[in-house]
Formats: sequence, structure tokens, C-alpha cells
Amino acid sequence: MAIEVIPLGGTGEIGKNMNVVRQGDQMVLIDAGISFPTEELPGVDLVMPDPTYLIENRHLLKAILITHGHEDHTGALPYILPQLEVPVYGTRMTLALIETKLKEKRIKADLREMIPGNPFEVGSFQIEPVRVTHSIPQSCALAVHTPEGTLFFTGDFKFDHTPVDGKPTDFNRLARIGDKGVLALFSDCTNIENKGWGESEISVGDTLYYLFAEAPGRILITSFASSLYRVQQVFDTAALYDKKVVIMGRRMEQNVDTAVGLGLLKIKPDTYVSSRRIDDLHDSDIVVLTTGSQGEPLSALSLMAADEYPRLKIKKGDTVILAASPIPGNESLIWRTVNRLIRLGARVIYDKIAPVHVSGHANLEELKLMLSLLKPKYIAPVHGEPRHQALYRDMARGMGYEEERFFLLENGSILRFENETAAIVDRAPVGRLLIEDGMPGGISENIIHDRRHLAQEGMLVAIIAIDAEKGVLVSEPELIIKGFTWHNDAQAQLAVDSIRETIATLRPAELSDWDAMRGELTATLKRFCRKQLNRRPMIIPVVMEV
Amino acid sequence: MAIEVIPLGGTGEIGKNMNVVRQGDQMVLIDAGISFPTEELPGVDLVMPDPTYLIENRHLLKAILITHGHEDHTGALPYILPQLEVPVYGTRMTLALIETKLKEKRIKADLREMIPGNPFEVGSFQIEPVRVTHSIPQSCALAVHTPEGTLFFTGDFKFDHTPVDGKPTDFNRLARIGDKGVLALFSDCTNIENKGWGESEISVGDTLYYLFAEAPGRILITSFASSLYRVQQVFDTAALYDKKVVIMGRRMEQNVDTAVGLGLLKIKPDTYVSSRRIDDLHDSDIVVLTTGSQGEPLSALSLMAADEYPRLKIKKGDTVILAASPIPGNESLIWRTVNRLIRLGARVIYDKIAPVHVSGHANLEELKLMLSLLKPKYIAPVHGEPRHQALYRDMARGMGYEEERFFLLENGSILRFENETAAIVDRAPVGRLLIEDGMPGGISENIIHDRRHLAQEGMLVAIIAIDAEKGVLVSEPELIIKGFTWHNDAQAQLAVDSIRETIATLRPAELSDWDAMRGELTATLKRFCRKQLNRRPMIIPVVMEV
Repeated sequence: MAIEVIPLGGTGEIGKNMNVVRQGDQMVLIDAGISFPTEELPGVDLVMPDPTYLIENRHLLKAILITHGHEDHTGALPYILPQLEVPVYGTRMTLALIETKLKEKRIKADLREMIPGNPFEVGSFQIEPVRVTHSIPQSCALAVHTPEGTLFFTGDFKFDHTPVDGKPTDFNRLARIGDKGVLALFSDCTNIENKGWGESEISVGDTLYYLFAEAPGRILITSFASSLYRVQQVFDTAALYDKKVVIMGRRMEQNVDTAVGLGLLKIKPDTYVSSRRIDDLHDSDIVVLTTGSQGEPLSALSLMAADEYPRLKIKKGDTVILAASPIPGNESLIWRTVNRLIRLGARVIYDKIAPVHVSGHANLEELKLMLSLLKPKYIAPVHGEPRHQALYRDMARGMGYEEERFFLLENGSILRFENETAAIVDRAPVGRLLIEDGMPGGISENIIHDRRHLAQEGMLVAIIAIDAEKGVLVSEPELIIKGFTWHNDAQAQLAVDSIRETIATLRPAELSDWDAMRGELTATLKRFCRKQLNRRPMIIPVVMEV
Repeated sequence: MAIEVIPLGGTGEIGKNMNVVRQGDQMVLIDAGISFPTEELPGVDLVMPDPTYLIENRHLLKAILITHGHEDHTGALPYILPQLEVPVYGTRMTLALIETKLKEKRIKADLREMIPGNPFEVGSFQIEPVRVTHSIPQSCALAVHTPEGTLFFTGDFKFDHTPVDGKPTDFNRLARIGDKGVLALFSDCTNIENKGWGESEISVGDTLYYLFAEAPGRILITSFASSLYRVQQVFDTAALYDKKVVIMGRRMEQNVDTAVGLGLLKIKPDTYVSSRRIDDLHDSDIVVLTTGSQGEPLSALSLMAADEYPRLKIKKGDTVILAASPIPGNESLIWRTVNRLIRLGARVIYDKIAPVHVSGHANLEELKLMLSLLKPKYIAPVHGEPRHQALYRDMARGMGYEEERFFLLENGSILRFENETAAIVDRAPVGRLLIEDGMPGGISENIIHDRRHLAQEGMLVAIIAIDAEKGVLVSEPELIIKGFTWHNDAQAQLAVDSIRETIATLRPAELSDWDAMRGELTATLKRFCRKQLNRRPMIIPVVMEV
């Protein structure tokens, strides 16, 4: 029976990963992520794949399988789970992170632990999670075994031979799955532009070791709250120097507590102390672990940089370490934070100064190794933009894969495997859902269009009160403008005059047809603004009958 | 007599370089640049330093000295020259680029050529331009000799021993100036995060040589229109392969014609052909030189990527080379263009794929060499953010410069040299002027605040018609919202009800005081939106008396 794979998000773009596998009346979803918007989407809090396809086919959906605990793989769960009553599978760490977020939104879910290496059945599929290394503990790739063949989803991965937790990728299992035969490989490809092989996470520990030695006073370190390997190394390095670690930032505290509870973070007694104790410690004994590596305006670090964080004031002698790399789009916020910290007297260490960050994604040679181990019949890289997918195609071609075995999927592409062949046969409805706090149904693209129009051009509200019977203005038209200014008072008066003239030229029929009247007023004011101001504000005519 | 140096722009930030040198009643301005805004400044076309200080002291200003022809050093001239009647000095190429832009805006100016190596007098200053290499021909550093000592401004520079035009930095002159003694060095520092020594511009030619050999069909190359060394190498490489170069993009055409006219661009006969001839050529003979390296939405390349450029349709077999690096903030536009070109079938080559770009700014070791040659008494890096300035301080410290000899200037810092000492003594008025087409006076920060408010939160206009004598509403209040939606119709009605209630509770005195009434209405609606929608739209109350 034909199998279909349909990426709903994360393919042809970065973020919000979501892939459907469907065979007959059986369907599973692999990952349910969101992405964070840039300034192009003003006011929007997060972006998730349009779940229409999922909702329409929810009677077929047997489970959601999550490869690891990052937001771009889990963040959509609070929004789709209430409409989909299916179990969610993940490793213990992944489920713990999901649980915390679902609890905050008071959403119940049937969470089921999966253990790398232990296959299990979901409907007619056999799911085999395979341990891989990434920047968060307990990450998995997923083999989906079907009677027609095996589909392999790498999830996000790198090959780290010396991972912080001592648990490397399960190469042997990958090799065994490859030997049995893989129908199609769906691979991470976002780091394919980086040649060679990425650095191991433990190299960051080496850097911290010498940075700690050099620091004359307090050390502040910021990273993603989910980067628990890095957090582990901060605690380890602090312990080596007999320093105390204090956490500032709610999410970091939560994740550390969760990971300690699961035994995934091992802290030497007395190294982790309450932030209340900070005033009792010598500067040279203090390590502050905090959030804000992306310059988020309300994060602890951004507030410290703005000198607005009551519990800690930056001073000369402080060393601030940004142990994370910028997510594209966040650069200007991050550099603003860095520059402010420097002006306050801190020494700031970031990626370009010292190797305080390594990526969690596979470089080119690692991607080749994954492909060599699995030897799939077909290839379709996901989790990357077209530029990454195209490079993956070049890479595969160099390894002997002919063009026909490669698919450059977009979100919505329905890739069907049937009778030993594969083809993109159709498109599923896809798109993005814009989520904003206080807008339960999401935000339409029209609203975004309006917001961008208002921001770029400003707006003009024209209010006229009209005596409908006589067809005349009963008072002076009133104009309100925002987002631009008249060049002078005379111009404002000219705009009012243009309204008077328009009303005066209307025929009786038009005077009683308010839509028509509003149309005329809009056209007049548009023309006026374009000619006089070289500007296209949003025009909002208000007609009041009195 | 004391000398003062005052950066008005470009210090503590990248872009819009502008530095004042003042001694008694003599003043010169070095560079007059602008920068381009990011999405944080919606609608704004360009940003220039607030010229207040210049205008206030225009009677002292003797000349504007321009180091090279880039926008971040010349772009403010059309806006300040009409208010400052002073000559503008620059090399021939620099003046030619300035002239083109001034002509477009119909601004006349007294442009005077300066020749590297030939000192000249301006008021009481002796100005000595020194040839340096950068990414645009005829770039200069400037030594400003005064009776109190020599101030040295590097302008933008790198040390390229094999420049495309065969005219390297005048090392010997730098050494001689250093030997005579430099009071203070004002150095470019934007590339200090890059270790070692930058690649020579000719390395891009090597890359083009093998990319041209590999390309199966048409080659499209995009770069900055001002990157004439790169343009030269495109023509040279095309000539080697007997290909024809066609230009698409007005600014590129202008600059090429200007440079050819000045003898700065040397093109083999018949290599440069009219774009009208493109249809007569074989694909493998075509090289298209175009603008759009920054993903500018209206550029030729962006239109080609959107399949909306009538004269050229991208197809399989095309090779597109982005011979430029992203200006920070442009990344998402650039990647969108790249991804679209790939989807249309082109192979796209950019910085990460092959070395098709080198920077025009000095790396760390080059900055050290400049400092070693000039051996200034004092140092103040300009043209860089605090993070770059701080690294320059670290670099200088390592070379034996004590902290007291280093100044971390901000825009507006008045650095005074007097009696063999130096100190920041005061602050000049500085800021940014936001320029927008159709807003002659510039845009206020309040307008930007309104635009961002409108974009983030949307707006609510509430119109009420009131019988002022009776103090009652004469019709149903009308609400217009943009940028958000009500959750349901009932909510809209509740908002109207809240207005009715507010009016009903007003005392007679308040009913005749419209400002007070508007204040009450605004407060009511703000509260309503925050409670019901968790939102803070801009509230615009309109009260009409009938």
C-alpha cells in the first residue's frame, strides 16, 4: 500500500518542523514545532504550521512522535493537542520539557515515554527511536518501519564522539538499519554550508576552563535554557574553581530543576546556590547563569545591560560570556546588549572572540556519513531552506545518487512511495498560522498587511458629519493623522478643502449611498496624499448622519 | 591652541561617518555619511547624523573632506550642503560619485579635487591625503596637520598588497608621518573581530576564473554598484573567456560609465555590450552584471528571483554569483532571493559556497600595522561599535599602549587636546535624523513610536456624536479597528456599551470639556482592551458635537 510523507513545516525554511507519515488510514505526525517571527511580522508572538491538514485527517492520526525537546519541534503541541486526541511519544527529557509547557497552559495530554533502541508499534507502523547527539539531551532519530519499507527521519543531529553525557549516537544501530534497507531518508541539512566536521560540545568546556581562569571578578554566562550540556559544563567548571553558580531567569531555573530531577544534570553539592545568597559571596566566587543569549528585551541579561535589573548591576571586572550563537534575525538585539554591557565596563566574550558555542547540527562530512550509513533508495532533505536542500543534492550527487532519487520538497509536497517508485503527486494545504497572545484564533495575513501598511505609511482618518436629507456637510470635516505629519498647516486645510469639493460634486443618489461616498472620499484623499506628500497612508473615512 | 575632535556619527555604531575637527574658529568636517535603516524604523529611507552642531557652527566650517565615495561617507551631502556653503574635497572618483548624486537632487556644490600625496591648506589646517586600499578606488586616509600636532584619520582601509588597480597603500608616507609624530589616531576598527590579515581583492578574480569555467550557461553576477574593483574583475574574466557583459540596473550602469570616463575601469573592446543585444547571444556567452546583492525588493535581481523581470527569466543552467556580503539586517531578504533563484533552477554561489567576496576593511593584524606605522600619542578608534572599540583597546594594550592613551569615544564626545594632554571634556548635541521621501524636515522619534505602536498593537478609533446641551449621545458610538480583531461580535458590542456607560457617568462640566471627555473615553477603552483582549491598541477618540 502506498506511503505518503508530507512536510507541513520546516522544509524549505528553518523552524516549525512538522512531518506527516500516512499509509492508508494510518497516520503519525513527527514533531510539532513553531518558529519565532522577525520584525516582518509585527506583534506576532510565534508562527506555527497551518494545522488544517491535521485537523481534517485527525481520525487517521495515531500518534505524535517528538524527536527532541526544542521549541521548533515541540512548540506547536499546546495549540494542536486540544484538537487532536492522540498520545505524544518522546524520551523522558523531551516529555518533561513538554509537560512543563502544557501545564502552564493547563492542557492535558497522554504522554508516553519512548526509549532509544526499543521499537514500539503505533497503528500499523513500527517506530524505532535511535539515539543521536544534538544540543539537548535525549535526542532521537526515528525509523518508521512499514510493510513497504523504512522511512528514516534524522531529526536534528550531529555526530559528537565525546558528548558531555557520554552517550554518543548509536552508530551500530544506524548501520544495521541501513543494512536492512531504507526506502527514504529525511535528513537535517541546515548546517550543510559548513565544511568538515563540527566541534564536540566538550570543546566549549575547554574554553570555559581558560575563561574562568582569566576572569578577575564575577562571571555571567548566558545560553539557551534548554542547552543542558552547556549548563552541565558551567556547573562542572565552576566546581573545578570552587565557584558558586547562581541562576537568574525563570526558564533556566525550571529546566535545571527538571534535568536534576531526571538525573540528567549532575551538580556537585554546594555548587548551585540560591540567588539570594549572591550578596554574601565574593565577586570572584560568583558565576551567574542566566537567559537572554538572543538579546530578548525582557530577559535578565538585557535588563542588566540596560542597567535596569535590580538584583545585579554590571560593573568593571565582570566577564559576560554569551555561550550561544545568534538565531538569524536577532543579531541587532544581541549586539545592542553586548555594546551596552561593554559601556557599563564588562568584558564580553562571544563566538567571534573565543569558541564559546558549537552548533548542534551536522556539518557537511557528518551529513555524508549519515547518508553512507543508511544508504537509502530515495533522499529528501528537510529542516533547511532551498539553498541547503540544493547543496544536499550536490553532496548526494557527488556520492553517486542520481538526480531521480532526490526530492527537493516544499511544505505541502505529498511525496508518495508506491510500487518501488517515488514521486511528488500532489500538494496538501499548508501555510503558517500566526499566534499572538490575546488572539485565540491566530492572526490573518490581512491583519499583518494592515499593520505593515500602518507602520510604513501611517494613517488618515477623515470624519464628516452629513445632513443626509439636504446632502450637505453640517460641520467642518475633521482629519486625524498618525505616523506622518503635514508639511504645514495650509496643507491640512487643503486636504479638508478636497473633501468639501468631493462632497459638493456628489449626486443625490451617491449622497444616500454611504459606501459610494466613502469610496469617493478614500479616492480623493489617496490622490491628495500621493500628490502632495508622495505618501500612501491607510485612509479611513467615517461618515456620520445627523 | 586646543584642538577638538568630535564624532557626530559612525562612532559607537556602524555607518553614517561624520567627524568634526575644530581649532579656535577653524573647523573641518571629515566625511558626511548616512546609514540605511532596519525594520525597527518602518518607512524610513535613510538615517543621518543630526546636523545641529554643524549648522550652529557653520560660520567656522572651512571645508568638508571626503575620504572615499561610499554612501556611509558621502550620503549626507545632499542634505547638509544646502545649509553649509563650503567646498567639498575628494579624489576624482569620489567627486564623480558625489556629483552624480547631487545632480539628481539638483544641488550645486563647490567640488575640489585632492590628490593623494599632495598636501593642501584649509584655513589654518594643512590636509595631507594618503592613498589607502579599500573596496572602492581612490580611497584616502587624511592627516590633519595643526600647529599642536597631527591628527590622523584612517578612513576605511585595508592593506592590500596586490590591489586590482596596482595602487597599494602608500606605506612609506604613513611611515614618514609616523616618524614626524602623530598626536592622535582615529582608526577604522569594524573588522577587528577577524584575526590575521584579510584576503586581497584579486582573490575574488581567481574564484571568478574557475566559476566561469564551470558555468554551463548564463552567468549573473551581483555586487555593489560602487565595487568597481570587482566590476573590473568581472570584465577581465569575461574577456578571458570571450564572453560579453551586459549590465542590468541603472546605478551599476551609471557607475561603470563614470569609471570608464575617468579611466579607472579598463574594458577590452567589445566585451561590454548593450542589454538589448542579450537575445542575440548564446547563453554561454552571456555575463549579466546587476544590482541587488542585498536583496533590495526593487532591484533587478530580486525581480528576477520573483520571476517578475521582463527582460530576463531565470532558468535551469543559470549560475548566479552574489559577489558581496550581507550588510547586517539584510540577511533575510538576501536568503529569500537566493532561495527563490534556486527554486527557479539556478545554481547560486555566495560567500559560504566559494570565496566570491572579500572585505574592504582591515583585519586585526592590519590594524596593528597601521598603529605601528603611525605610533600616535593617543588613540581613539572610530567607525565601529563599542564591541569593536573595546577590542581595539585590548589590541593596543597588548602593543604597549597604556589605558590613559586610549579613548572610547561615543558620538558627541568632545575630545580635546591641550597642553600635551587629552581628555573628553564635553558632549556636543548629537542624534539621528530620519529621512523619508516626502517628509522634507525628517521624521521625529515620536512618529516612529506611533508607527511601531500601530504595527505592534493596532488601533481603535471611537467616534461619538454628542448633543452638547443635553449631554447625551445622539447616535450609537462607532468603532473602527485596524491591526487586530474582536474575538466575536458580542465583544464589539461590549466595547460600545463601555463607552455609553462612561458618557452616562460624566458630570455636566466634563461633558462640555472635550479634552476631559476624550481622556475618559481613552482610559475606558484602554482598560477594556487590556482586560478583554490583553492588548494595548492606539486609542483615538473622536467627539463630534451636533
